[in-house]
Amino acid sequence: MTIINFDHISYNPLLPEVKKAMIEAINKDYHNPSSMHKAGEQSAEVIEKARAAVAQLIHADSPKEIVFTSGGTESVNYAIKGGVMANTEKGTHVVTSNIEHNAVIRSLKRLKSSGLQVTSLPVDENGRVRPKDVADAITDKTILVSIMHSNNETGTIQPIEEIGKITREKKVLFHCDAVDSVGIVPVNVQTLNVDLLSFASNTFYGPTGMGGLYVRRGTRIFPLLDGGVQENNKRAGTENLIGIIGMGKAAELAVQHINTQYDHLLKLKNTLLNKLPDYINEYLINTDLKHSLPHVVSISIKYIEGESVVLMLDEDNFAVSTKSACATGSLRASHVLLSLGLSHADAQGTLVLAFGLENTADDVMKFLSSLKNVVTTLRNMSPLYKNK
Amino acid sequence: MTIINFDHISYNPLLPEVKKAMIEAINKDYHNPSSMHKAGEQSAEVIEKARAAVAQLIHADSPKEIVFTSGGTESVNYAIKGGVMANTEKGTHVVTSNIEHNAVIRSLKRLKSSGLQVTSLPVDENGRVRPKDVADAITDKTILVSIMHSNNETGTIQPIEEIGKITREKKVLFHCDAVDSVGIVPVNVQTLNVDLLSFASNTFYGPTGMGGLYVRRGTRIFPLLDGGVQENNKRAGTENLIGIIGMGKAAELAVQHINTQYDHLLKLKNTLLNKLPDYINEYLINTDLKHSLPHVVSISIKYIEGESVVLMLDEDNFAVSTKSACATGSLRASHVLLSLGLSHADAQGTLVLAFGLENTADDVMKFLSSLKNVVTTLRNMSPLYKNK
Repeated sequence: MTIINFDHISYNPLLPEVKKAMIEAINKDYHNPSSMHKAGEQSAEVIEKARAAVAQLIHADSPKEIVFTSGGTESVNYAIKGGVMANTEKGTHVVTSNIEHNAVIRSLKRLKSSGLQVTSLPVDENGRVRPKDVADAITDKTILVSIMHSNNETGTIQPIEEIGKITREKKVLFHCDAVDSVGIVPVNVQTLNVDLLSFASNTFYGPTGMGGLYVRRGTRIFPLLDGGVQENNKRAGTENLIGIIGMGKAAELAVQHINTQYDHLLKLKNTLLNKLPDYINEYLINTDLKHSLPHVVSISIKYIEGESVVLMLDEDNFAVSTKSACATGSLRASHVLLSLGLSHADAQGTLVLAFGLENTADDVMKFLSSLKNVVTTLRNMSPLYKNK
Repeated sequence: MTIINFDHISYNPLLPEVKKAMIEAINKDYHNPSSMHKAGEQSAEVIEKARAAVAQLIHADSPKEIVFTSGGTESVNYAIKGGVMANTEKGTHVVTSNIEHNAVIRSLKRLKSSGLQVTSLPVDENGRVRPKDVADAITDKTILVSIMHSNNETGTIQPIEEIGKITREKKVLFHCDAVDSVGIVPVNVQTLNVDLLSFASNTFYGPTGMGGLYVRRGTRIFPLLDGGVQENNKRAGTENLIGIIGMGKAAELAVQHINTQYDHLLKLKNTLLNKLPDYINEYLINTDLKHSLPHVVSISIKYIEGESVVLMLDEDNFAVSTKSACATGSLRASHVLLSLGLSHADAQGTLVLAFGLENTADDVMKFLSSLKNVVTTLRNMSPLYKNK
């Protein structure tokens, strides 16, 4: 039986053209691009072609501003650790928000032992950082602001452009974790005023374990991976050529199709939101629908546990999630939902739905029927529901 | 025209079985292994199968001691930075050697700004670290010893087992960069007495951009990549599943075929060494042939420049190198060769030959003819040679 995947934050299947490009690359046996002979030169050309495609996707001035990494997490670690370590003589203070991905939170925590001070800002009732809070939090010791482009559990998009104006004016380095946005919504590093921007290939249906960091020319940053002279001396290590080729092809396709894909995804989400009241009641929508990724919606269903819903929907061959896949091993309630002001009980009853290119309106309708059954069954077993 | 590749330190072509496994993985669309539903569980199983194969290759007690990384460079950075940062309360001193890969040298250099003190040991006339030097260099402030298993420019194998006895006795963490050894020569983390061991998939004909770090159970180390809970909390980031599958298959094959492959490679090297005097004169062998990788030999040819040889051999469709591909962008003479006591002139005249599984004795003979022509041509143009 085919699984209907509504967990597209956690994984996107490779596009057929990406598969084709990667399989061709596997069969071609590209040599190490750093070697001196002509077998190496061909590989170097292929890498630069992919770099140009990625640069175009985020409107970088030059492909040289793109550093390929092993994924969004490495990009974030590189931006934060490399950005902080290279600028400690200027200060030891960083501004971030309470709803960042664990890659940001834990990278900053790692640096606290070296004396870094971190101001973590709350979000408003819609789950958005207030630009004024960022302005107020910046001191003359602030060396970095790190705010995500869109949240990976709610899909809510943050006011990055306005924050970027503030950091530009105050001459503070600005990192934006755009891992869940790049390739899904238009991201332009020029209008956003960011210095560092993290992204991941799988978000736009390229391979996992591949990503990139945009590093604006002139930005002072230390490498996270020291060693050889690859990636313009910014990231040592023999390149994952097959991954780079896959990511480059996925970026090319995203540039071409981002608008039609956006419309398709938004239509699925709107179908779900419009029909949902006909199937279940007593739920909260945690996503700021005015500012959100087209494909993501977070729903807290009262009187039930999200994990039970996920497991029962899994039986019906629907893949959904309760929170970030990166935090699956952890039993704690989502820090993102608690930051939004949800009670622990409501946070535990949360489903994150993230639609994908291969999903159809019919999938959504089937899902709603299945969800209705699951919710009814679980609520019938729930003492909370009976005693409400 | 087919290129004959004698540059197998820089790149190994994927084995046919590895290609097949990776292409199957691409077509299978494995889901994110961290997600809760059954699509994710299948991926998690595939990863654990690969981890078990890699554990077997290096004789780890448990697959849990294997952390997948994006390659040898990340493994080395992780071992050194993570190993040092987690143990700074015990001391601030590290012992290493003068012939390490830049990933080791530059990772240590990065930590010097945080107060780390590094003792870098010279090598003997055969290019080997003296275990007694390691013992003498360890103080009560020493928290880490990092010595490579085999050198990537000479192929000389270091006395790791003896050094491991010393570090074990003195209770100092021992990291071994075995990037050029694992999968080529038997490597057993138990007899070597190492706590941390870096390796790379491409060395045993798996994909580039994939590697691993052996972390002996109980070893205190901080992650290099902070974020999600992947890799038993040791390395955050969505897994490069296609790469992991390729590496796992390559490890399986290496376990099966390492002995016959060793014999094949050594035969090629011995053919070259036996015939070489019939083709050129006035050269030095920089490799300690008694303790070396079966496939690598470093030869300094007097009165000529290695880079010119590489370029002329490239015209004849032979791929060879002068030094580490990771250092190709740099114009400096190899620090490894200078550590061996070579003059700058001899170091500049060096060729590194690294044979591979697909090479034949016939390839070696063709190469020797080509090399003879190249050396004759270059020496005829060399004022050094005329005035010698």
